[in-house]
Amino acid sequence: MKLLEDRIVKDGTVLSGDILKVDTFLNHQVDPQLMNLIGKEFKKLFDKNNITRILTVESSGIAPAVLTGLQMNVPVVFARKHKSVTMSDNAFVSDVYSYTKKVTNHISIDKRFINSDDNVLIIDDFLANGQAVHGLVDIIHQAKANVSGIGIVIEKSFQPGRKQLEKDGFNVKSLARIASLDNNKVTFVE
Amino acid sequence: MKLLEDRIVKDGTVLSGDILKVDTFLNHQVDPQLMNLIGKEFKKLFDKNNITRILTVESSGIAPAVLTGLQMNVPVVFARKHKSVTMSDNAFVSDVYSYTKKVTNHISIDKRFINSDDNVLIIDDFLANGQAVHGLVDIIHQAKANVSGIGIVIEKSFQPGRKQLEKDGFNVKSLARIASLDNNKVTFVE
Repeated sequence: MKLLEDRIVKDGTVLSGDILKVDTFLNHQVDPQLMNLIGKEFKKLFDKNNITRILTVESSGIAPAVLTGLQMNVPVVFARKHKSVTMSDNAFVSDVYSYTKKVTNHISIDKRFINSDDNVLIIDDFLANGQAVHGLVDIIHQAKANVSGIGIVIEKSFQPGRKQLEKDGFNVKSLARIASLDNNKVTFVE
Repeated sequence: MKLLEDRIVKDGTVLSGDILKVDTFLNHQVDPQLMNLIGKEFKKLFDKNNITRILTVESSGIAPAVLTGLQMNVPVVFARKHKSVTMSDNAFVSDVYSYTKKVTNHISIDKRFINSDDNVLIIDDFLANGQAVHGLVDIIHQAKANVSGIGIVIEKSFQPGRKQLEKDGFNVKSLARIASLDNNKVTFVE
Protein backbone atom coordinates (compact mmCIF):
# COMPACT_ATOMS: atom_id res chain seq x y z
CA MET A 1 0.00 0.00 0.00
CA LYS A 2 1.93 2.92 -1.42
CA LEU A 3 0.13 5.58 0.63
CA LEU A 4 1.01 3.78 3.87
CA GLU A 5 4.67 3.32 2.87
CA ASP A 6 4.90 7.02 2.05
CA ARG A 7 3.38 7.89 5.42
CA ILE A 8 5.86 5.62 7.25
CA VAL A 9 8.78 7.32 5.47
CA LYS A 10 7.35 10.80 6.13
CA ASP A 11 6.23 10.41 9.76
CA GLY A 12 7.92 7.29 11.13
CA THR A 13 11.03 7.39 13.33
CA VAL A 14 13.50 4.55 13.70
CA LEU A 15 14.72 4.01 17.27
CA SER A 16 17.57 1.79 18.40
CA GLY A 17 16.72 -1.88 18.76
CA ASP A 18 14.89 -2.08 15.41
CA ILE A 19 11.92 -0.15 16.77
CA LEU A 20 9.79 1.80 14.32
CA LYS A 21 7.84 4.58 15.98
CA VAL A 22 4.61 5.44 14.15
CA ASP A 23 2.75 7.09 16.98
CA THR A 24 1.75 10.10 14.87
CA PHE A 25 -0.82 8.10 12.88
CA LEU A 26 -1.19 4.51 14.14
CA ASN A 27 -0.70 3.72 17.80
CA HIS A 28 -1.03 6.83 19.97
CA GLN A 29 -2.36 9.49 17.66
CA VAL A 30 -4.57 7.84 15.03
CA ASP A 31 -5.37 9.16 11.55
CA PRO A 32 -8.99 8.01 11.03
CA GLN A 33 -8.96 8.65 7.24
CA LEU A 34 -5.87 6.47 6.86
CA MET A 35 -7.49 3.77 9.03
CA ASN A 36 -10.51 3.86 6.72
CA LEU A 37 -8.31 3.36 3.64
CA ILE A 38 -6.55 0.51 5.47
CA GLY A 39 -9.98 -1.02 6.14
CA LYS A 40 -10.86 -0.77 2.43
CA GLU A 41 -7.55 -2.41 1.48
CA PHE A 42 -8.10 -5.33 3.89
CA LYS A 43 -11.62 -5.74 2.52
CA LYS A 44 -10.19 -6.05 -0.99
CA LEU A 45 -7.61 -8.61 0.16
CA PHE A 46 -9.95 -10.80 2.21
CA ASP A 47 -13.36 -10.23 0.64
CA LYS A 48 -13.53 -13.71 -0.90
CA ASN A 49 -12.79 -15.46 2.41
CA ASN A 50 -16.35 -15.29 3.74
CA ILE A 51 -15.17 -13.61 6.97
CA THR A 52 -17.71 -13.69 9.82
CA ARG A 53 -15.68 -12.02 12.57
CA ILE A 54 -12.52 -9.97 13.07
CA LEU A 55 -10.21 -10.53 16.05
CA THR A 56 -7.50 -8.19 17.31
CA VAL A 57 -5.69 -7.32 20.57
CA GLU A 58 -6.06 -4.10 22.58
CA SER A 59 -5.07 -1.32 22.16
CA SER A 60 -3.26 -0.52 18.92
CA GLY A 61 -5.08 -3.15 16.86
CA ILE A 62 -8.51 -1.68 17.61
CA ALA A 63 -8.54 1.26 15.16
CA PRO A 64 -7.52 -0.68 12.00
CA ALA A 65 -9.68 -3.66 13.03
CA VAL A 66 -12.84 -1.60 13.60
CA LEU A 67 -12.46 0.26 10.31
CA THR A 68 -11.95 -3.09 8.53
CA GLY A 69 -15.07 -4.40 10.28
CA LEU A 70 -16.97 -1.32 9.10
CA GLN A 71 -15.93 -2.00 5.49
CA MET A 72 -16.59 -5.76 5.67
CA ASN A 73 -19.74 -5.41 7.79
CA VAL A 74 -18.72 -7.94 10.46
CA PRO A 75 -18.31 -7.63 14.24
CA VAL A 76 -14.88 -6.97 15.74
CA VAL A 77 -13.64 -8.51 18.99
CA PHE A 78 -10.60 -7.19 20.79
CA ALA A 79 -8.78 -9.55 23.12
CA ARG A 80 -8.10 -8.04 26.51
CA LYS A 81 -4.66 -8.03 28.09
CA HIS A 82 -6.04 -6.90 31.43
CA LYS A 83 -9.06 -8.54 32.97
CA SER A 84 -12.12 -6.29 32.83
CA VAL A 85 -14.47 -6.06 35.80
CA THR A 86 -17.38 -7.12 33.60
CA MET A 87 -15.50 -10.04 32.08
CA SER A 88 -16.80 -13.44 33.05
CA ASP A 89 -14.54 -16.42 33.76
CA ASN A 90 -16.01 -18.02 30.67
CA ALA A 91 -13.13 -17.01 28.41
CA PHE A 92 -10.53 -18.45 26.10
CA VAL A 93 -7.08 -17.46 27.36
CA SER A 94 -3.64 -17.57 25.77
CA ASP A 95 -0.18 -16.35 26.79
CA VAL A 96 1.58 -13.69 24.73
CA TYR A 97 5.18 -12.72 25.35
CA SER A 98 6.07 -9.19 24.29
CA TYR A 99 9.73 -8.87 23.22
CA THR A 100 9.53 -5.08 23.29
CA LYS A 101 7.92 -4.81 26.73
CA LYS A 102 9.60 -7.98 28.08
CA VAL A 103 6.43 -9.18 29.82
CA THR A 104 4.02 -12.06 29.32
CA ASN A 105 0.39 -11.04 29.08
CA HIS A 106 -2.59 -13.31 29.21
CA ILE A 107 -4.93 -12.30 26.41
CA SER A 108 -8.52 -13.39 26.73
CA ILE A 109 -11.72 -13.42 24.72
CA ASP A 110 -15.14 -14.20 26.14
CA LYS A 111 -16.37 -17.55 24.77
CA ARG A 112 -19.62 -15.91 23.64
CA PHE A 113 -17.72 -13.97 20.98
CA ILE A 114 -16.20 -16.77 18.95
CA ASN A 115 -18.01 -19.85 17.67
CA SER A 116 -16.91 -23.04 15.94
CA ASP A 117 -18.54 -21.94 12.67
CA ASP A 118 -16.68 -18.59 12.53
CA ASN A 119 -14.30 -17.70 9.70
CA VAL A 120 -12.00 -15.33 11.53
CA LEU A 121 -9.81 -12.58 10.12
CA ILE A 122 -7.01 -11.54 12.49
CA ILE A 123 -6.00 -7.87 12.20
CA ASP A 124 -3.04 -6.30 14.01
CA ASP A 125 -0.99 -3.14 13.73
CA PHE A 126 2.46 -4.82 13.77
CA LEU A 127 3.92 -8.23 12.97
CA ALA A 128 7.44 -8.84 14.25
CA ASN A 129 7.99 -12.08 16.18
CA GLY A 130 4.33 -12.95 15.77
CA GLN A 131 3.59 -13.57 19.44
CA ALA A 132 0.28 -11.66 19.53
CA VAL A 133 -0.97 -13.35 16.35
CA HIS A 134 0.02 -16.77 17.71
CA GLY A 135 -2.01 -16.03 20.85
CA LEU A 136 -5.06 -15.15 18.75
CA VAL A 137 -4.58 -18.25 16.56
CA ASP A 138 -4.41 -20.35 19.74
CA ILE A 139 -7.72 -18.85 20.95
CA ILE A 140 -9.37 -19.42 17.55
CA HIS A 141 -8.23 -23.05 17.64
CA GLN A 142 -9.51 -23.47 21.21
CA ALA A 143 -12.89 -22.31 19.87
CA LYS A 144 -12.58 -24.81 16.95
CA ALA A 145 -13.12 -21.89 14.57
CA ASN A 146 -11.31 -21.27 11.29
CA VAL A 147 -8.41 -18.80 10.79
CA SER A 148 -9.38 -17.41 7.37
CA GLY A 149 -6.63 -14.82 7.11
CA ILE A 150 -4.18 -12.56 8.90
CA GLY A 151 -4.05 -8.87 7.97
CA ILE A 152 -1.14 -6.80 9.25
CA VAL A 153 -0.68 -3.05 8.89
CA ILE A 154 3.16 -3.00 9.22
CA GLU A 155 5.31 -6.11 9.00
CA LYS A 156 8.96 -6.25 10.03
CA SER A 157 9.89 -8.84 7.42
CA PHE A 158 13.40 -9.23 8.86
CA GLN A 159 11.93 -10.74 12.03
CA PRO A 160 10.61 -14.33 12.15
CA GLY A 161 6.83 -13.74 12.56
CA ARG A 162 5.69 -14.08 8.93
CA LYS A 163 7.97 -17.03 8.10
CA GLN A 164 6.55 -19.09 10.97
CA LEU A 165 2.94 -18.18 10.15
CA GLU A 166 3.45 -19.17 6.49
CA LYS A 167 5.08 -22.43 7.58
CA ASP A 168 1.95 -23.08 9.63
CA GLY A 169 -0.11 -22.61 6.45
CA PHE A 170 -1.73 -19.23 7.15
CA ASN A 171 -2.66 -16.60 4.57
CA VAL A 172 -0.76 -13.48 5.73
CA LYS A 173 -1.21 -10.12 3.98
CA SER A 174 0.73 -7.07 5.17
CA LEU A 175 0.09 -3.56 3.86
CA ALA A 176 3.69 -2.43 4.41
CA ARG A 177 6.60 -4.88 4.54
CA ILE A 178 9.85 -3.60 6.01
CA ALA A 179 13.04 -5.33 4.86
CA SER A 180 15.36 -3.40 7.16
CA LEU A 181 15.63 -0.55 9.64
CA ASP A 182 19.43 -0.47 9.41
CA ASN A 183 21.18 2.90 9.70
CA ASN A 184 17.90 4.42 10.98
CA LYS A 185 16.44 4.11 7.49
CA VAL A 186 13.25 2.34 6.47
CA THR A 187 13.76 -0.02 3.52
CA PHE A 188 10.71 -1.87 2.19
CA VAL A 189 10.60 -5.37 0.71
CA GLU A 190 10.89 -5.05 -3.09
CA MET B 1 -30.04 8.29 20.57
CA LYS B 2 -32.98 5.90 20.30
CA LEU B 3 -31.08 3.20 18.39
CA LEU B 4 -28.42 3.04 21.12
CA GLU B 5 -31.01 2.92 23.93
CA ASP B 6 -32.79 0.08 22.15
CA ARG B 7 -29.50 -1.78 21.76
CA ILE B 8 -28.69 -1.33 25.47
CA VAL B 9 -32.10 -2.76 26.43
CA LYS B 10 -31.77 -5.63 23.95
CA ASP B 11 -28.13 -6.64 24.55
CA GLY B 12 -27.06 -5.06 27.84
CA THR B 13 -26.90 -6.96 31.13
CA VAL B 14 -27.11 -5.36 34.57
CA LEU B 15 -24.68 -6.84 37.11
CA SER B 16 -24.66 -6.21 40.84
CA GLY B 17 -22.94 -3.01 41.94
CA ASP B 18 -24.66 -0.87 39.31
CA ILE B 19 -22.54 -2.31 36.52
CA LEU B 20 -23.97 -2.31 33.01
CA LYS B 21 -22.35 -4.91 30.79
CA VAL B 22 -22.40 -3.95 27.11
CA ASP B 23 -19.54 -6.13 25.89
CA THR B 24 -21.56 -7.50 22.94
CA PHE B 25 -21.33 -4.20 21.02
CA LEU B 26 -19.16 -1.61 22.80
CA ASN B 27 -16.21 -2.72 24.91
CA HIS B 28 -15.12 -6.24 24.04
CA GLN B 29 -17.01 -7.13 20.90
CA VAL B 30 -17.57 -3.94 18.88
CA ASP B 31 -20.34 -3.27 16.34
CA PRO B 32 -18.58 -1.10 13.73
CA GLN B 33 -21.84 0.06 12.07
CA LEU B 34 -23.17 1.26 15.42
CA MET B 35 -19.85 3.03 16.12
CA ASN B 36 -20.18 4.79 12.76
CA LEU B 37 -23.70 6.01 13.65
CA ILE B 38 -22.36 7.14 17.03
CA GLY B 39 -19.63 9.07 15.17
CA LYS B 40 -22.26 10.76 12.99
CA GLU B 41 -24.30 11.68 16.06
CA PHE B 42 -21.29 13.24 17.82
CA LYS B 43 -20.46 15.16 14.63
CA LYS B 44 -23.98 16.61 14.65
CA LEU B 45 -23.69 17.57 18.33
CA PHE B 46 -20.23 19.15 18.17
CA ASP B 47 -19.89 20.27 14.55
CA LYS B 48 -20.15 23.97 15.42
CA ASN B 49 -17.36 23.79 18.02
CA ASN B 50 -14.46 23.97 15.56
CA ILE B 51 -12.90 20.80 16.93
CA THR B 52 -9.24 20.27 15.96
CA ARG B 53 -8.52 17.07 17.87
CA ILE B 54 -10.29 14.25 19.72
CA LEU B 55 -8.92 12.77 22.93
CA THR B 56 -9.91 9.48 24.55
CA VAL B 57 -8.43 6.79 26.85
CA GLU B 58 -7.46 3.27 25.82
CA SER B 59 -9.05 0.80 25.21
CA SER B 60 -12.84 1.08 25.14
CA GLY B 61 -12.87 4.72 24.08
CA ILE B 62 -10.88 4.06 20.91
CA ALA B 63 -13.65 2.68 18.66
CA PRO B 64 -16.23 5.47 19.19
CA ALA B 65 -13.47 8.14 19.16
CA VAL B 66 -11.92 6.96 15.88
CA LEU B 67 -15.31 6.77 14.14
CA THR B 68 -16.11 10.28 15.40
CA GLY B 69 -12.72 11.43 14.10
CA LEU B 70 -13.53 9.86 10.73
CA GLN B 71 -16.82 11.78 10.55
CA MET B 72 -15.31 15.07 11.77
CA ASN B 73 -12.06 14.66 9.83
CA VAL B 74 -9.75 15.35 12.79
CA PRO B 75 -6.97 13.28 14.38
CA VAL B 76 -7.71 11.13 17.43
CA VAL B 77 -5.30 10.65 20.33
CA PHE B 78 -5.76 7.90 22.87
CA ALA B 79 -4.16 8.36 26.28
CA ARG B 80 -2.17 5.36 27.38
CA LYS B 81 -2.67 3.73 30.76
CA HIS B 82 0.45 1.64 30.36
CA LYS B 83 3.70 3.16 29.21
CA SER B 84 4.57 2.11 25.67
CA VAL B 85 8.15 1.19 24.73
CA THR B 86 8.15 3.87 22.04
CA MET B 87 6.71 6.52 24.33
CA SER B 88 9.08 9.35 25.16
CA ASP B 89 9.30 10.96 28.60
CA ASN B 90 7.98 14.11 27.00
CA ALA B 91 4.39 13.50 28.05
CA PHE B 92 1.54 15.08 29.96
CA VAL B 93 0.53 12.73 32.77
CA SER B 94 -2.52 12.61 35.05
CA ASP B 95 -3.82 10.19 37.66
CA VAL B 96 -7.12 8.39 37.14
CA TYR B 97 -8.74 6.31 39.86
CA SER B 98 -10.98 3.54 38.59
CA TYR B 99 -13.82 2.77 41.02
CA THR B 100 -14.69 -0.44 39.17
CA LYS B 101 -11.13 -1.78 39.03
CA LYS B 102 -10.05 -0.13 42.30
CA VAL B 103 -6.68 0.95 40.94
CA THR B 104 -5.07 4.27 40.08
CA ASN B 105 -3.66 4.49 36.56
CA HIS B 106 -1.40 7.17 35.22
CA ILE B 107 -2.75 8.17 31.85
CA SER B 108 -0.34 9.93 29.53
CA ILE B 109 -0.30 11.73 26.20
CA ASP B 110 2.84 12.67 24.30
CA LYS B 111 3.24 16.47 24.30
CA ARG B 112 3.57 16.45 20.50
CA PHE B 113 -0.10 15.48 20.20
CA ILE B 114 -1.79 18.39 21.94
CA ASN B 115 -1.07 22.07 21.39
CA SER B 116 -2.17 25.26 23.09
CA ASP B 117 -4.30 26.22 20.06
CA ASP B 118 -6.27 22.94 20.02
CA ASN B 119 -10.04 22.82 20.50
CA VAL B 120 -10.37 19.37 21.97
CA LEU B 121 -13.39 17.07 22.00
CA ILE B 122 -13.19 14.37 24.68
CA ILE B 123 -14.93 11.11 23.74
CA ASP B 124 -15.40 8.16 26.10
CA ASP B 125 -17.54 5.05 26.25
CA PHE B 126 -18.84 5.54 29.81
CA LEU B 127 -19.33 8.41 32.25
CA ALA B 128 -19.95 7.40 35.86
CA ASN B 129 -17.79 9.15 38.47
CA GLY B 130 -16.00 11.05 35.74
CA GLN B 131 -12.46 10.12 36.77
CA ALA B 132 -11.20 9.35 33.24
CA VAL B 133 -12.70 12.55 31.83
CA HIS B 134 -11.17 14.58 34.68
CA GLY B 135 -7.78 13.09 33.86
CA LEU B 136 -8.15 14.10 30.19
CA VAL B 137 -9.35 17.59 31.19
CA ASP B 138 -6.28 17.91 33.43
CA ILE B 139 -3.98 16.97 30.52
CA ILE B 140 -5.75 19.44 28.17
CA HIS B 141 -5.30 22.18 30.78
CA GLN B 142 -1.61 21.27 31.23
CA ALA B 143 -1.27 21.80 27.48
CA LYS B 144 -3.14 25.14 27.78
CA ALA B 145 -5.57 23.89 25.13
CA ASN B 146 -9.35 24.34 25.12
CA VAL B 147 -11.90 21.70 26.19
CA SER B 148 -14.55 22.31 23.51
CA GLY B 149 -16.89 19.49 24.47
CA ILE B 150 -17.31 16.11 26.11
CA GLY B 151 -19.12 13.35 24.21
CA ILE B 152 -20.13 10.23 26.12
CA VAL B 153 -21.68 7.06 24.67
CA ILE B 154 -23.38 5.85 27.88
CA GLU B 155 -23.85 8.02 30.96
CA LYS B 156 -24.86 6.70 34.37
CA SER B 157 -26.76 9.82 35.32
CA PHE B 158 -27.30 8.58 38.89
CA GLN B 159 -23.56 8.83 39.55
CA PRO B 160 -21.82 12.18 40.13
CA GLY B 161 -19.72 12.50 36.93
CA ARG B 162 -21.98 14.74 34.84
CA LYS B 163 -23.04 17.00 37.70
CA GLN B 164 -19.42 17.84 38.54
CA LEU B 165 -18.46 18.43 34.89
CA GLU B 166 -21.45 20.76 34.40
CA LYS B 167 -20.53 22.61 37.61
CA ASP B 168 -17.07 23.09 36.11
CA GLY B 169 -18.73 24.66 33.05
CA PHE B 170 -18.21 21.91 30.48
CA ASN B 171 -20.53 21.08 27.56
CA VAL B 172 -21.41 17.40 28.14
CA LYS B 173 -23.49 15.44 25.61
CA SER B 174 -24.33 11.79 26.24
CA LEU B 175 -26.01 9.55 23.67
CA ALA B 176 -27.72 7.39 26.29
CA ARG B 177 -28.47 8.63 29.82
CA ILE B 178 -29.31 6.01 32.41
CA ALA B 179 -31.42 7.15 35.37
CA SER B 180 -31.27 3.86 37.23
CA LEU B 181 -30.15 0.24 37.08
CA ASP B 182 -32.33 -0.74 40.07
CA ASN B 183 -33.88 -4.22 40.06
CA ASN B 184 -31.55 -5.20 37.19
CA LYS B 185 -33.55 -2.98 34.86
CA VAL B 186 -32.25 -0.15 32.68
CA THR B 187 -34.30 3.04 33.07
CA PHE B 188 -33.32 6.02 30.91
CA VAL B 189 -33.52 9.71 31.87
CA GLU B 190 -36.86 11.08 30.57
